[in-house]
Order: sequence, then structure tokens, then C-alpha cells
Amino acid sequence: MVGRPVWLKAESLQRSGSFKARGAFNAVVAGLEAGDNRGVLAVSSGNHGQAVALAARELGLPATVVMPENSSPVKVTAVRAYGARVINEGVTGRNREQVAADVAARDGLRLIHPHDDPLVMAGQSTVAMELADQLPEVGERPRAILAPLGGGGLIAGICLGAASRLPGVEVLGVEPETADDGARSFYSGELVTLDEVPQTAADGVRTLHLGRRCWEVIRAQARGVLTVSEAELAEAAYFLFTRLKLVVEPTGALAVAALLRERPEIPAGVEAVCILSGGNCLPQQLAELTTLRGHPA
Amino acid sequence: MVGRPVWLKAESLQRSGSFKARGAFNAVVAGLEAGDNRGVLAVSSGNHGQAVALAARELGLPATVVMPENSSPVKVTAVRAYGARVINEGVTGRNREQVAADVAARDGLRLIHPHDDPLVMAGQSTVAMELADQLPEVGERPRAILAPLGGGGLIAGICLGAASRLPGVEVLGVEPETADDGARSFYSGELVTLDEVPQTAADGVRTLHLGRRCWEVIRAQARGVLTVSEAELAEAAYFLFTRLKLVVEPTGALAVAALLRERPEIPAGVEAVCILSGGNCLPQQLAELTTLRGHPA
Repeated sequence: MVGRPVWLKAESLQRSGSFKARGAFNAVVAGLEAGDNRGVLAVSSGNHGQAVALAARELGLPATVVMPENSSPVKVTAVRAYGARVINEGVTGRNREQVAADVAARDGLRLIHPHDDPLVMAGQSTVAMELADQLPEVGERPRAILAPLGGGGLIAGICLGAASRLPGVEVLGVEPETADDGARSFYSGELVTLDEVPQTAADGVRTLHLGRRCWEVIRAQARGVLTVSEAELAEAAYFLFTRLKLVVEPTGALAVAALLRERPEIPAGVEAVCILSGGNCLPQQLAELTTLRGHPA
Repeated sequence: MVGRPVWLKAESLQRSGSFKARGAFNAVVAGLEAGDNRGVLAVSSGNHGQAVALAARELGLPATVVMPENSSPVKVTAVRAYGARVINEGVTGRNREQVAADVAARDGLRLIHPHDDPLVMAGQSTVAMELADQLPEVGERPRAILAPLGGGGLIAGICLGAASRLPGVEVLGVEPETADDGARSFYSGELVTLDEVPQTAADGVRTLHLGRRCWEVIRAQARGVLTVSEAELAEAAYFLFTRLKLVVEPTGALAVAALLRERPEIPAGVEAVCILSGGNCLPQQLAELTTLRGHPA
């Protein structure tokens, strides 16, 4: 269908419903091993919050998640279901970092950043390290790995993991066209910040800019950053749903969307791995996204 | 969550998107082995048509599928994508059997029934035989298997497979409350036929009655038939989507729906296997079904 062999790594089936569990567990474990028994704090309206809540519960620490007051009730419920305390009263997209800093100081909590933290990036690097173990089992040797690019923790982690375990394999980030700060940064060599929160169905990558530490890894080690249209994203999400029977959240379909047209960065025939980054979404969300294909159900 | 260990067998990930591939392949192969090289014909607006189309293509026979004219365009496209000829002009739910008989006679085709055929039932029995191989690998020994009950081919097949490979394991069919001909047949001992096509989101089990051959197996070997409400079906579909990240069509969620309340037929604590019978559906369909939970997205 896309002129090349493609492997999919379904992080949608990962615990907590996304790859974020990797970084969260690594950060929480590393703190404990260093003798830090403080509770942990995350600022997140999405997958990072659920991942930190799960990691803390499994490792016996209390977790607090700061979420904007207008977060989806389903996401608030999910974080609470993992046993975390949610702070959302009066919290907005603008003041949430400050609220988190205040709560962390007041309650003596350890803040775990969603991407710009070496421990979190190291956790995400296990995606590539697992691939290095799994692909030989099926006799495959991919030449490219594609994954969504938001704050950059996943791509930076995969770059680091691939450098040690999959030498020669190229790593590419994928962004929505409307959230192309990563591509503009990569091809200009300067970290670009968007003026406003981008409009895209891929709600996991509505970041304004890459994390500074992630950027340093990505500029040096990634092969490129590709952008996809919302229509391509819808097409990929529809394919994953109807043909592979996998629930993949909009952001998780970005890498597959990038393969729907020819790309000079990954010539035809080159074997690729797409990271399906997560599956935390609702039926209604995928119904709305896939109608963008122009194929009504 | 439901007070017992539960295993799920994801036939949604089966080739053709449902368990129907098992019976279709067995029937097509058995014909070829008996020296019958005629093309094959199926009457189906759903999974059986796709399964026969796939089996015929893989085994080098032409396939024809008779579908009502008002079938979903997506399903017509899916059958054609497997290389089958679709006959739907002027075909209705009432005349389709006659159209199929005429086409079979005219073109010299072999009709493969969706359930009331020993070869098809034998194919579906591999669900239980595979379970007998797979469960010991994970150290489990279930005491009950639950699966959707429509025409009865799947449940009859599982009864036959379990009798030979999982002795002592009980098999239960699950129907929507509105399509309870199987339950009424089972508990009365007489094959019951519904007066009209039942209203249920589970479009794979809108049959009027069990197949005669299926019924003979089910009455003798099944443990019982359970019914579920549309709200329970919606709850199960929502759970499978949001927690397990699996695309399961409404019919495929019936067995899980049956575990949402206490059932004298399977006492609390008894380990059960639920068969997720298929995954051929659209995002819009699951969005509509799951809003029946009363939890808007």
C-alpha cells in the first residue's frame, strides 16, 4: 500500500496507554534509587499525567497531577483512577506551571517534566532498545524509525537508543503541518517557538517548542522532521482503525500518516518502523477525525 | 472489575477481521480436496462475505458475494477489495437467498452457508482448539467460554472443539435481549424463530433463528445462553475501546457485556474466556453505540 515494508510498534498497548510510561517509570525509579522518597508531581492534561500516576502507584509514592480546569472529564477520571490527586481548580493553560511550582514547594514534591529531563528521555530510549531486541526475532532490519514529535522526548530518546543499539538506522520526527516548529527548528538550526497553540487533531503534540535538552539531541542525531496534513492524519487513523483494528489516538497516527506520500528522506522500498505513540482517546474523537477524510460513515 | 479472571481471544485481529475466516477457509479447502474446483458463492452483508472472498482468493478460486442493495458501501468495498464479484442490484433481504440459488445454478458455483454447514462449524471449532493450545502456555485453565450467538456456527463449533480438547469447560452463548431466540430455544428445547429482524447494535447476530445443524449441537452440548441489554453492550464496547485499545465491532463485545453483572450460570470467581468475534466496524458506529452509556464524549 505504501511501497515499502512497514513495522508498527504499538505503544497504544503499553501500560497507561502510551509510551509515556517508559519515561515516567524511569524517572520515578531513579529518584527512589537516589534516596528521594518525596511524592511526585506532573503538569499534564494528557498521557504524561496518567503515566506518572501509574508509575507512582506501582512504586508506592503519592502522585499529584496539575491539570487545567477545562481538561476533559475523562482524562481527569483516568488520572484519578490511577490513584493520583488532581489539582485543577482555577488552573489554566497559562498559570499551570506556576501552580505546579507552588504546590511542589509547599508540599515538598518532586516535579517530573514531560520531556525535557534526561531521565525521561532515557526512559523513552527503551523504545529503540526494545526494537533492537524484537526486530531480529522476526528477521527484520529496518532502516528508518518514524515517531511523533511534540516536546521531543520520544524522538530524542529514540535517537539515543538507536545510536547505541541500532547504528545506521535513521530517526525521523513527524509533526502536523500546523505545528511545524520542530521542522522549522531542524532545518534552520535555530530553536523555533510557535506564537500560539497550534490547531491540530493531534492533541499530544500541541507544544509551542521543543524542550532545550531534547533539541540538542535531535539537532545532532535525527535524520529529519516530516510534516503531515490533517487529511493525511485522518486517513492514517482510519486505516489503523478499520484495517488493523487498533485504537490509536490522533497523535499516534502521525508516523503512519507520513508514509502516505513519497518522501525524499525515506526513499521507496526502505523498510520503516512507525511508533504508534498512544491509544488514549474516545470513540467520538476518532469518529470526528476520520470524517475529515471526506468518507462519511 | 468483574470479580473473576478473564481472558479475551481477539478474533478481531484474525484475517478478514473476524472468526468467519476459520469456517470459510475450511469449507473452501475441503471442497478443493474433494476435487470441487467450482467458484464459491456466499450470501452475506457482513463478515462471512469478506471471509469467503479472502479464502477464495488465497486458494485461487473466484468468489461471488450476494449482498442486499442497501448494504453499507464500506462493506461492499471491503468484499471487492478481497477480489470478489459483488451482486447487489435489485437484491433485498427477502430475495437474496433466491438470487443466490439462481446465480449458483446459472454459473455453476458452490454455495457456502454462513453457519449451518458442518465444514463451517468445524472451521469455527478451531477457536476452542487454539485455546487448548494457548492457555497452558500462560498457565491458565478456564472453566467457561463465552461467545456471541447468532446463527449458531461459532457456538456450535466451540462446543465441538471444547468437547475434544477442553473437556469439562462450559460453553455459553450470548445474545442481545432483543434477539433472544437462542435463549428461548435453549430453555424451551424447541427451535424458536423471531417474527421480525431484531433491533440491536450487534448487527452480526440479527438472525431470526439458529441454523438447524447448529441447534442440534448447541442443545446437546452448550451450558446456557445469556442475554445482555443494549446498555450493557455499550458499556462493554466502551471498555474494550478505552481500556484495551481494541477495535471490536458491537457484536464482538457481547461476551464481555455478559460479565458485567452476576450470572448464576458462571459463579463469581470462575475463570472465563470471552471471544471477541470481530472488528469490522467504523469509528462512527462505536461512537454511536458508546453514547448509549449515557457518558457523552
